[in-house]
Amino acid sequence: MAIRGLLRVGEVCVRVFDIEESRRHYGERIGLIETYQGDPDKIYYKGSDEHDWYSLVLKKSDKSGVEYFAFKTHSDADLDHFDRALTEYGLVVEHIEPGVYPKSGRRIQFKLPSGHIMQIYAEKERIGNGMPLRNPGTIPDEGYIRGMRVIRLDHILLGGTDIVANRDLFKSVFDMTVSEELISHEDETRLAVFLTGSNKPHDIAFVLQPTGSRFHHVSFLLESVNDLFHAGDLIGKYEIPVDISPNRHGVTRGATIYFFDPSGNRNEVFTGGYVHYPDTPTLTWDTTQLGKATFSHDNLPRDSFLNVLT
Amino acid sequence: MAIRGLLRVGEVCVRVFDIEESRRHYGERIGLIETYQGDPDKIYYKGSDEHDWYSLVLKKSDKSGVEYFAFKTHSDADLDHFDRALTEYGLVVEHIEPGVYPKSGRRIQFKLPSGHIMQIYAEKERIGNGMPLRNPGTIPDEGYIRGMRVIRLDHILLGGTDIVANRDLFKSVFDMTVSEELISHEDETRLAVFLTGSNKPHDIAFVLQPTGSRFHHVSFLLESVNDLFHAGDLIGKYEIPVDISPNRHGVTRGATIYFFDPSGNRNEVFTGGYVHYPDTPTLTWDTTQLGKATFSHDNLPRDSFLNVLT
Amino acid sequence: MAIRGLLRVGEVCVRVFDIEESRRHYGERIGLIETYQGDPDKIYYKGSDEHDWYSLVLKKSDKSGVEYFAFKTHSDADLDHFDRALTEYGLVVEHIEPGVYPKSGRRIQFKLPSGHIMQIYAEKERIGNGMPLRNPGTIPDEGYIRGMRVIRLDHILLGGTDIVANRDLFKSVFDMTVSEELISHEDETRLAVFLTGSNKPHDIAFVLQPTGSRFHHVSFLLESVNDLFHAGDLIGKYEIPVDISPNRHGVTRGATIYFFDPSGNRNEVFTGGYVHYPDTPTLTWDTTQLGKATFSHDNLPRDSFLNVLT
Amino acid sequence: MAIRGLLRVGEVCVRVFDIEESRRHYGERIGLIETYQGDPDKIYYKGSDEHDWYSLVLKKSDKSGVEYFAFKTHSDADLDHFDRALTEYGLVVEHIEPGVYPKSGRRIQFKLPSGHIMQIYAEKERIGNGMPLRNPGTIPDEGYIRGMRVIRLDHILLGGTDIVANRDLFKSVFDMTVSEELISHEDETRLAVFLTGSNKPHDIAFVLQPTGSRFHHVSFLLESVNDLFHAGDLIGKYEIPVDISPNRHGVTRGATIYFFDPSGNRNEVFTGGYVHYPDTPTLTWDTTQLGKATFSHDNLPRDSFLNVLT
Repeated sequence: MAIRGLLRVGEVCVRVFDIEESRRHYGERIGLIETYQGDPDKIYYKGSDEHDWYSLVLKKSDKSGVEYFAFKTHSDADLDHFDRALTEYGLVVEHIEPGVYPKSGRRIQFKLPSGHIMQIYAEKERIGNGMPLRNPGTIPDEGYIRGMRVIRLDHILLGGTDIVANRDLFKSVFDMTVSEELISHEDETRLAVFLTGSNKPHDIAFVLQPTGSRFHHVSFLLESVNDLFHAGDLIGKYEIPVDISPNRHGVTRGATIYFFDPSGNRNEVFTGGYVHYPDTPTLTWDTTQLGKATFSHDNLPRDSFLNVLT
Repeated sequence: MAIRGLLRVGEVCVRVFDIEESRRHYGERIGLIETYQGDPDKIYYKGSDEHDWYSLVLKKSDKSGVEYFAFKTHSDADLDHFDRALTEYGLVVEHIEPGVYPKSGRRIQFKLPSGHIMQIYAEKERIGNGMPLRNPGTIPDEGYIRGMRVIRLDHILLGGTDIVANRDLFKSVFDMTVSEELISHEDETRLAVFLTGSNKPHDIAFVLQPTGSRFHHVSFLLESVNDLFHAGDLIGKYEIPVDISPNRHGVTRGATIYFFDPSGNRNEVFTGGYVHYPDTPTLTWDTTQLGKATFSHDNLPRDSFLNVLT
Repeated sequence: MAIRGLLRVGEVCVRVFDIEESRRHYGERIGLIETYQGDPDKIYYKGSDEHDWYSLVLKKSDKSGVEYFAFKTHSDADLDHFDRALTEYGLVVEHIEPGVYPKSGRRIQFKLPSGHIMQIYAEKERIGNGMPLRNPGTIPDEGYIRGMRVIRLDHILLGGTDIVANRDLFKSVFDMTVSEELISHEDETRLAVFLTGSNKPHDIAFVLQPTGSRFHHVSFLLESVNDLFHAGDLIGKYEIPVDISPNRHGVTRGATIYFFDPSGNRNEVFTGGYVHYPDTPTLTWDTTQLGKATFSHDNLPRDSFLNVLT
Repeated sequence: MAIRGLLRVGEVCVRVFDIEESRRHYGERIGLIETYQGDPDKIYYKGSDEHDWYSLVLKKSDKSGVEYFAFKTHSDADLDHFDRALTEYGLVVEHIEPGVYPKSGRRIQFKLPSGHIMQIYAEKERIGNGMPLRNPGTIPDEGYIRGMRVIRLDHILLGGTDIVANRDLFKSVFDMTVSEELISHEDETRLAVFLTGSNKPHDIAFVLQPTGSRFHHVSFLLESVNDLFHAGDLIGKYEIPVDISPNRHGVTRGATIYFFDPSGNRNEVFTGGYVHYPDTPTLTWDTTQLGKATFSHDNLPRDSFLNVLT
């Protein structure tokens, strides 16, 4: 039946302190495409190869972090299905009317055991990827791809107290697969869980934290390690605060750079990683190999990476 | 619900004239890993990052082409589901016992409108990707990745007379999505149809041909255009007959080289291409842009590519 | 003593039919930087990482081809040295006053045995590479690198009748090294000669032609095969006529695409190739391997490449 | 006159504690090719695309660091020229007979102001790069390029007290060019000097240290950032101690990984960097930008990198 149900993290709303500073960061420097102007306290962005109107929403706030995130699901009927399934699971499901979010159909909303607000929607208007649908060619006009040349929103990593409950929910209600896990070598406690419903090694991941509703990072896809180095050049040029300079994750095998937006929210540019299927065996890392699991070029765990969240 | 039903083309059986010549081509030069020795007239291969025991079977024959191909499906119950659905659709479904194919569970088999023999199976034993499941690291031992450094079997392209019926079958029975189509600009006849049930721009494709059961190519995934050029270096070194030297497809946006095995079967090494979801709009190319649809760096259609099949 | 005498092909003047069409091709599409506006029938360009004011001059003409080319030499005194040496060698040397060419010091000019007009100069004003000389950083501002992302003029290939005399002149007067040669396997006639005075596998090359003063191509350096594919994407998008889509040369081992400007002059984008030193052994290709010498991914010689010059 | 006089660092002798451990590191893991077996306390290596018999010599010792390094010069007559020039400059020049070093012609040897032993030689026998000189093709046989896929020895960085005297010597006697310098922003003291006699952004560099004769690193050239990430994968796999994971230097613009051999000597794998000519302006970095000068992706200076030498 192919990819059904939850397709991908189709929208993340990140809280930022200053709209103009954030526009410079996400628009000019990362190179996301600003697509909608509504409320002056919000900006809407998409990556160059995304068709839907927006995938990243910045919201002015005096507190950084993630406001909510939303999975796009395959069909409108999925919303009713998930509404029932989540209610049965014991969560309180709210209903959001079409149009409350710009260009978007109706949504359901609920709070994860980790404290995060999650939404699901099936419809969002399309703005396209800069190329026609008939005889599209392979590359949009000069300037459409710019800054760090990000292609699309790839995944998010969230922190919370009860990530095992999240894991159970994503498996049982959303039929997602645990691609990888990081466990304590002492007591097998799950410290991080990576979940996928696609061919990507992860769509969403959760890391154990002392408090809930924490935001670790939002990740943007790049085409190649050449573009990763190009992104690193821009990050250095603009003196964007870096958390982790280029490296390869053990988990996912993706190549990565981590850096911070002007409000202290962590961003990632990401490329590579293996092709995942539901029959791909789950990989388990334990804390004897925490360094290799996180940053496999030097096998060094980084405190900031493990402990700084917004 | 993530990826369900047909996961991927998990197995292709290609007919070759000479086993030793083919072993040199697919094993030493392409770098596939030979994993099973049974019948002396067959060889079984997998790509470096595939976990299942084999994905390519070479079978000695005096006629080149594709003997059969098989999709792996998510669960054993899918086999009963597809058995019923295919029978209702009007196809004759045969049942193959577990173990008839090495390391494989039961299968169903049927003939597509295009004349090709297709199988579906849910179980195949795993041999792994050269790395453990606990603390796997990111790269197997030296020598495991070799030759053209192919990662996995990516997709197949088949030729037949009634590709519209195939298209309908893959959509209605297998819930796959048409990612792209090539149509005649004169009468809108479908000349090629690209189908996906994953994040790949295609899992299988069909091209209109005057006769049925034709084999256009089997494609192997590479990591980067650097590896594509490295593959090209080996292809040139070993004087492997080339159909198309490096180029980028319009359809799929993948970077490609096409070449022939010693029996005249076409192989492809492939990298890149966009990330597909079921809500990605279908792209349509017409024959006014046949060159760009096939080879977008020079927009030149190639006769051999369009007309030579085995 | 390091690199002394002739440093590089510092300037090529190519004849074009139409200035605006050529500006679109060389400026917008290839991405060269237009740096000087003088005579309305000329345009002056440099690559993004070149410091001198210009390296490519387009001159309006009703005949395509190369008007002249110029090597930059290390010191002003070299001009007197080469003046004497060339005169002794039997060539007629003309003197060009400083300022006749914009931003340029004095030059000497002479006609090669192949019929081409060659100049040598030691001084040209610098405009820089978009980055300061103190704490320069690693990447210029957005937009400075654009189009095909060419870094610099790399080399030229010229055609003429007496390329053996050119070879002798470049070796004996200019102390350059023959890096590679293509010879007839029947009678050892030299068909192409590749000369270098640097670490590049060639700075200039000559190919045997029935008539003199012919222009085969001017080549621009790219950073990676990723950028080569990006250039190919633009070439296809703009429907620039392609001579050879991506391939690797046997000679030089460089990765290449050849295409034509609107006046029919051949351009190349080029990346890679080995590191050459004067003690690197000369490589010889014979016509039994003409395909591999020219295009090593498929070992196919191309008629147009061998025979179309302006 | 092309490249004359000193061509390149053609040989470095590094002291190591244990021969077998070092063979595993430099041979199996870095992938250098062992080419000579003489004295059991020495190993001789070359990179895959080097033609001379060896460029790296490991010598068993109970003290790590650099024993000597040697430039290859263009002609035998250069040795007499440099003998005179160095003597006039005030250095004591020793003469080493042909054959004292395996496969090598005569040498001259002297001590630099920084305390390092430097040699110059003009002749070394050639073993080739795994490809013939007639119709060589573009890629050697499988297995010739292995491990980290290093192409050649690229450059060395040495530490000493009087680097300004070294700088003067390399400029005045060897006609080399200062490509870049790092100076104190307080008093303009030169802290690091980068010298080139080729198109590379540096052939040799010196960094100010409290004591003389110190070894900072030997660097090996890679083809691409893809190969840099591949090297990083192997470094992580083998748990080779890493100094700096992937980053881009401000100085030279090269992409880099630094790691240590089993004796604590620093190695680098390096790719990219700009094309240098004698007329390229010297770039100056001051200590206000020490981070960007060293590691431009995060602009962070590293203590270990600045202060750990052997």
